[in-house]
Amino acid sequence: MAQKPSIPKGTRDFSPSEVNKRNYIFDVVKKHFQTYGFQPIETPSFENSETLMGKYGDEGDRLIFKILNSGDFLNKVDPGFFKEYVQVEIILKDIYSEIKLRAESFKELDDYSNRNFTQETKDFLIPEYKDRLASFSPGDYSYYIERLLNLYVHSNFGDNEDIETFGLLPILKEAFGNFLKHQTSKISFSISEKALRYDLTVPFARYVVMHQNELDFPFKRYQIQPVWRADRPQKGRFREFFQCDADVVGSDSLLQEVELVQLYDAVFTDLKLEGVTIKLNNRKILAGIAEVIGERDKLIDFTVALDKLDKIGIEGISKEMREKGISDAAIEKAAPLFALRGSNLEQLSVLSDLLKDSEEGAKGVGELSFIITTMEELGLQSANLKIDVTLARGLNYYTGAIFEVAAPEGVSMGSIGGGGRYDDLTGIFGLKDVSGVGISFGLDRIYLVLEELGLFPEAIDQSLQVLCVNFGDREALTSLKLVNRLRKAGVKCDLYPSNAKMQKQMKYANNRNVPFVVLIGEQELASNSFVVKDMVKGGQETYSLDKPEDFLNNL
Amino acid sequence: MAQKPSIPKGTRDFSPSEVNKRNYIFDVVKKHFQTYGFQPIETPSFENSETLMGKYGDEGDRLIFKILNSGDFLNKVDPGFFKEYVQVEIILKDIYSEIKLRAESFKELDDYSNRNFTQETKDFLIPEYKDRLASFSPGDYSYYIERLLNLYVHSNFGDNEDIETFGLLPILKEAFGNFLKHQTSKISFSISEKALRYDLTVPFARYVVMHQNELDFPFKRYQIQPVWRADRPQKGRFREFFQCDADVVGSDSLLQEVELVQLYDAVFTDLKLEGVTIKLNNRKILAGIAEVIGERDKLIDFTVALDKLDKIGIEGISKEMREKGISDAAIEKAAPLFALRGSNLEQLSVLSDLLKDSEEGAKGVGELSFIITTMEELGLQSANLKIDVTLARGLNYYTGAIFEVAAPEGVSMGSIGGGGRYDDLTGIFGLKDVSGVGISFGLDRIYLVLEELGLFPEAIDQSLQVLCVNFGDREALTSLKLVNRLRKAGVKCDLYPSNAKMQKQMKYANNRNVPFVVLIGEQELASNSFVVKDMVKGGQETYSLDKPEDFLNNL
Repeated sequence: MAQKPSIPKGTRDFSPSEVNKRNYIFDVVKKHFQTYGFQPIETPSFENSETLMGKYGDEGDRLIFKILNSGDFLNKVDPGFFKEYVQVEIILKDIYSEIKLRAESFKELDDYSNRNFTQETKDFLIPEYKDRLASFSPGDYSYYIERLLNLYVHSNFGDNEDIETFGLLPILKEAFGNFLKHQTSKISFSISEKALRYDLTVPFARYVVMHQNELDFPFKRYQIQPVWRADRPQKGRFREFFQCDADVVGSDSLLQEVELVQLYDAVFTDLKLEGVTIKLNNRKILAGIAEVIGERDKLIDFTVALDKLDKIGIEGISKEMREKGISDAAIEKAAPLFALRGSNLEQLSVLSDLLKDSEEGAKGVGELSFIITTMEELGLQSANLKIDVTLARGLNYYTGAIFEVAAPEGVSMGSIGGGGRYDDLTGIFGLKDVSGVGISFGLDRIYLVLEELGLFPEAIDQSLQVLCVNFGDREALTSLKLVNRLRKAGVKCDLYPSNAKMQKQMKYANNRNVPFVVLIGEQELASNSFVVKDMVKGGQETYSLDKPEDFLNNL
Repeated sequence: MAQKPSIPKGTRDFSPSEVNKRNYIFDVVKKHFQTYGFQPIETPSFENSETLMGKYGDEGDRLIFKILNSGDFLNKVDPGFFKEYVQVEIILKDIYSEIKLRAESFKELDDYSNRNFTQETKDFLIPEYKDRLASFSPGDYSYYIERLLNLYVHSNFGDNEDIETFGLLPILKEAFGNFLKHQTSKISFSISEKALRYDLTVPFARYVVMHQNELDFPFKRYQIQPVWRADRPQKGRFREFFQCDADVVGSDSLLQEVELVQLYDAVFTDLKLEGVTIKLNNRKILAGIAEVIGERDKLIDFTVALDKLDKIGIEGISKEMREKGISDAAIEKAAPLFALRGSNLEQLSVLSDLLKDSEEGAKGVGELSFIITTMEELGLQSANLKIDVTLARGLNYYTGAIFEVAAPEGVSMGSIGGGGRYDDLTGIFGLKDVSGVGISFGLDRIYLVLEELGLFPEAIDQSLQVLCVNFGDREALTSLKLVNRLRKAGVKCDLYPSNAKMQKQMKYANNRNVPFVVLIGEQELASNSFVVKDMVKGGQETYSLDKPEDFLNNL
């Protein structure tokens, strides 16, 4: 009767220590979101399917978790759907009968073993059944005809009795499986009208459009909520995870980009994660490069190769570019990018020169230049700001600045944050010309980095500061009064719930990592006092029950 | 192309002000959970279906949101399912043909209009088709035979040509709908293996069993996460809402109950919601009453009527009890309960006398008595503690104490919290003999009460404390430096992102309810100063840019 419990793959239980550490990160991030004037919103975990579908590409659509309609969800399915299965079966059986029939007539004509039988039958059947089969198995209808024909011929022209059981059924099953594959998305719209949030960006766009009349633009919002993706679970890739986003919509001022760089710097500095690198690029610069070297189609191949410059050198990347079909002329034109070195300002000057003939590229250099020079003026606390023209994340999505944050050198971890500017996010929901820019923090990775570097505050695992030992009913009552007093002062404090053996109670205190154990036994009751054992330094001290503040002051 | 966006019924978007108010409640609750030694855990939003199904009764199962398997979810459906639809159609058409055939033979026998035709045909067909139809429409197979027969007779024995189109089809559709209803739960197990969390209690039990070797018992956990229910949405009833639970498992000490009463008192006092009533009962007392008055089956009717004592008096409740079939003898025996008045201690003495012959009842009185007398000793900050023997929430679930919290008098609102002790929660997952007790806070209702009584802190809607007006690039850069300084001191501060008209910038400041506006124009640049306008009290003051702390100290 009892089940051995488990949780779905790709999901996680979080222990108290893990929740506390995650909340520590969230709290630091939230604090800075707020001092930067961002306001929190929250959206429902599930949205109407049409809000999400088609917004993340085909692959994204596939990874969206769909929720089954509640109640009699099959009622909305077109009954024709159920009939089609049977029709597939009937058609395939018809074809098989036809093959048999034709074989008989070949036999009558004494042409039984005619090599032409197979070809002629095929030539006859394929056009004949094209329309009937095509709607069930688009593109490969002739495949089933050929298989049925082969089956018949290899069964010694139907002499083998088992053919229908062992030969025909698997083909029918396969054909039906193929038919179902084509039906899956159709039927999923009939039986599911809601889907779990895939990211926070599309729901945010939907929110802005729905609430546009209540909002003051520029609207700066932050949102920290879980999202769900039906990705194949892997180490470090989960089906449920938190996203943590800050976006501004309704302002195209580059001061927003400046501010987001500062925000990254403020958060990581506060997390004591010093030395992160904020990489900066601009979609317009990428477009400009493509334009100038004349390889618009191969931009991704180009940047992917360029990104390996440090590892494989100019020779290496030139070779890779050539292999990807990028012309020698293009590679030659792009040469200044291979020599892009030095300070951000030096790099800007090279880019400015390279892209002077591309209007869009020059605009990108101008934008990048504003951010860089303003930040030079304002300064950073602990992060580095670095131009990276290979940075292309979410290329189709971003229209201006592109950000990505790398963990400090020596920590091997992908990006721990990223973002950029998008010019028309709310357009999909009918609100045009609202520019937005935003960044996000990668909670799970930041967690791993802080753990690796030992940067979580020590007190984070101290879920209980004081435990009172329970010596019996009378002692417990007096202990409870002290516990009350300590809790009112904000101390995490507990009375062991039963008069268990001292050893058991002390073991519990040890396991929970409690720094102070309070003892109120018969003797203390008599003298109106309590004893505090210091579990870390050792030793103990006695206080008066009338002056618990003496202990509080020592905590 | 653009969609008019909406969100699923029963779900909500939360505006910044709403999120801040909700977080205010959560933060207060969390703070006290922690000082009481509770530790946070979090569990996945979706669980394996078998973890949830069957734990909440049939009605609960129906209200669980199921998640469609990702990928080709139809592949796991038995192909027989699809065939069955067609079989239903074939059987019904067979029956119809049979009716026609029999009508012809009646006609030949010149018995065309024989009144016996209908009865004889029915008598023949019903046993004939019993087995074939019953598997599709259990219980009502003969219903379709009668309908088809009536259809045929009323179409003037088949003379009306439209019968197949207008008569037969609706019957087929209805029969198929009925068939589908019987298939829904079967197929939902094939196409869905995960389901959204319905409450926090079952996932907690699953967590305890899965992680039993890592936990120190008694394990005190709190959990604040959303749950989902496919309930019909109503005013105040949502399909997604947060639950906020604290439970202790692994201790049967009544000190836990005492502590939970104190915890309620601490939280509501801190929320400034003074005068809530914590109602207390015990499942064993209810069982004892049922035993003593000899009406075990009518316990719910009895307590429902008893609850109306204050409204309709002894006469009224006696009448209602009689109407529900409770005997006069039982009502007479229960009479002491009708006179239950006065202090908790006085009521305990009446209960103790009434239940002295019921072992279980007497045990319940003893437990209640311990909690009441201990609380008399410890005292409450602002809540009232009141015995309420009519309190029966979740009767099947609780085995000992039952809690419920009512809003202060004058606020019309259902319970704002509740809980109780359960002796064997983890048994369903194979871990026996672990007693638990817990309480929960009703976030949405507490929110409404605080809103109604104006108890949210005033500063909660102040998402921005300082806004700097933007007078142009040079001024903006200097402003940004000041903004930086203020943010580092924890001030929620912003620079308007563009050099828009003064009027527009001031309107934004007003809309966002900003108390201080900072002006750094050409003149201030020249004199290295900044002007602060007090938007609440009026007036303005000038500070040196070298000493922003003078302003900070005035904030």
